[in-house]
Amino acid sequence: MIQRVALICGNGAFPLVAARAARQRGIDVFILGLKGMAAEDIAEFPHIWLGVGQLGAAFREIAARDIKDICLIGGLGRPEFADLRPDWGAIKRLPEIFRLLKGGDDHALKGVIRLFEGEGLRVIGVEDLAPDLLAAEGAMNRVPFPDDLKEDLAFGHDCLGALSAYDCGQALVLAHRRIIAIEAAEGTDAMLLRVADLRERGRWRAKGPAGLLIKAPKKGQDLRVDLPAMGPETIASAAKAGLKGIAVQAGRVLILDRAAVAAQAEKAGLFLFGFTRETAA
Amino acid sequence: MIQRVALICGNGAFPLVAARAARQRGIDVFILGLKGMAAEDIAEFPHIWLGVGQLGAAFREIAARDIKDICLIGGLGRPEFADLRPDWGAIKRLPEIFRLLKGGDDHALKGVIRLFEGEGLRVIGVEDLAPDLLAAEGAMNRVPFPDDLKEDLAFGHDCLGALSAYDCGQALVLAHRRIIAIEAAEGTDAMLLRVADLRERGRWRAKGPAGLLIKAPKKGQDLRVDLPAMGPETIASAAKAGLKGIAVQAGRVLILDRAAVAAQAEKAGLFLFGFTRETAA
Repeated sequence: MIQRVALICGNGAFPLVAARAARQRGIDVFILGLKGMAAEDIAEFPHIWLGVGQLGAAFREIAARDIKDICLIGGLGRPEFADLRPDWGAIKRLPEIFRLLKGGDDHALKGVIRLFEGEGLRVIGVEDLAPDLLAAEGAMNRVPFPDDLKEDLAFGHDCLGALSAYDCGQALVLAHRRIIAIEAAEGTDAMLLRVADLRERGRWRAKGPAGLLIKAPKKGQDLRVDLPAMGPETIASAAKAGLKGIAVQAGRVLILDRAAVAAQAEKAGLFLFGFTRETAA
Repeated sequence: MIQRVALICGNGAFPLVAARAARQRGIDVFILGLKGMAAEDIAEFPHIWLGVGQLGAAFREIAARDIKDICLIGGLGRPEFADLRPDWGAIKRLPEIFRLLKGGDDHALKGVIRLFEGEGLRVIGVEDLAPDLLAAEGAMNRVPFPDDLKEDLAFGHDCLGALSAYDCGQALVLAHRRIIAIEAAEGTDAMLLRVADLRERGRWRAKGPAGLLIKAPKKGQDLRVDLPAMGPETIASAAKAGLKGIAVQAGRVLILDRAAVAAQAEKAGLFLFGFTRETAA
């Protein structure tokens, strides 16, 4: 059982939601808010503010509270070296930090985990704090997943799997075995708005709702720090793109307020389906 | 030796450039201009106008002129069934046409080739008519391909190769082994403008020129009808995206006015490099 946890919080709404869920389950939450990223509301918890480069301070504060479990949550963007303003604790580890800033996101995050583990800390995932934040298995609202999209789901999921070797591809949109859009650095919502635009300009033509969004972590991605996430904007963008629905990997995609998001999807006529390796094969 | 050819022309500038180049090499060119797509200037050649669905008429006109070689060139968009307005010759072949409209572009184009071959015609590629329209091998201007991008070229080319199995991925942008953008239905220029936008909004941060565009046909793509193409807009968009340059597969990418495009790239400080399987490994 986890008794105390240090949450290192980036931007977005997930950090606070996870912190509150953990508190409700009786876990002592201490927050390290990243300056310029974390929400002001972390003030409702014991907290400190730190720059991304202040690794040394982070380690000291965590050790001082005898905390062994840490959880990294929220968006970071990719810090440029100039923004890091490293403290001495970070400078000591510069060669390592340098290495982790090269390569894809997944690579970088594994480096971050290793840095913390090197200090004797255990990096835990959101599912250990707030399992309700993760996509459930099967239909999450009353719009059923259409049988005739099974083949597309398997095809698209395979395609994402093939991209994992290149440390990219957390989401794509396809219809009738045709890949319409693949996400790389732009993020899922931007990709969905692109699909909406492609439809508007007639580069993807289909009558009525068509196609689906598939979202899953990369194979080999460390789920402790880098779960793909979706929220109300994802639903709104998918509706704009005129999709039939959204398939996410069950237990491996964060959904901000699952019940509300599922209801929002239903209202827009979109299925929200949590697939597993078995149902996407 | 090809003496007579029927060019079935879609949109864009390539059809006329290829037609003129073929004429200069002493080939008799007859043009079938697709209504609403081909440029008015096809009138400088013996020509007729046809709707996309008028397959029957196309076969008759070609046979009447005793032409055995045909070449499909220019963009089509993806015709929706409602736009096809099929003639009887097309209606006879409806089941086949139906099949070819499902699935990715490559699939559809192979179907088109089979339709023509089924009529005893030979489908030839642009390289048979106008080899100068294709990317040359090696540096095409005086900006050298930087040695330190070799690894990225190989990595990105591999990634495109992996996507071929999913009938997508003709281009991508990457930097330091990080895939920034992958092209699907939006086209290369739209992808490059997205990269420019990602840089502007700080989602891809890099100082000065960084990253490269890699463009190549899909593996197994029938080069006779679906060569990837680039022109002045590609260079302008790559410059906007702040890239270091462009690597295209030699002999397998159409370049509209190669000399002018290479000079334009040079002026923008971009390399324009024609890679081969060997130089991208």
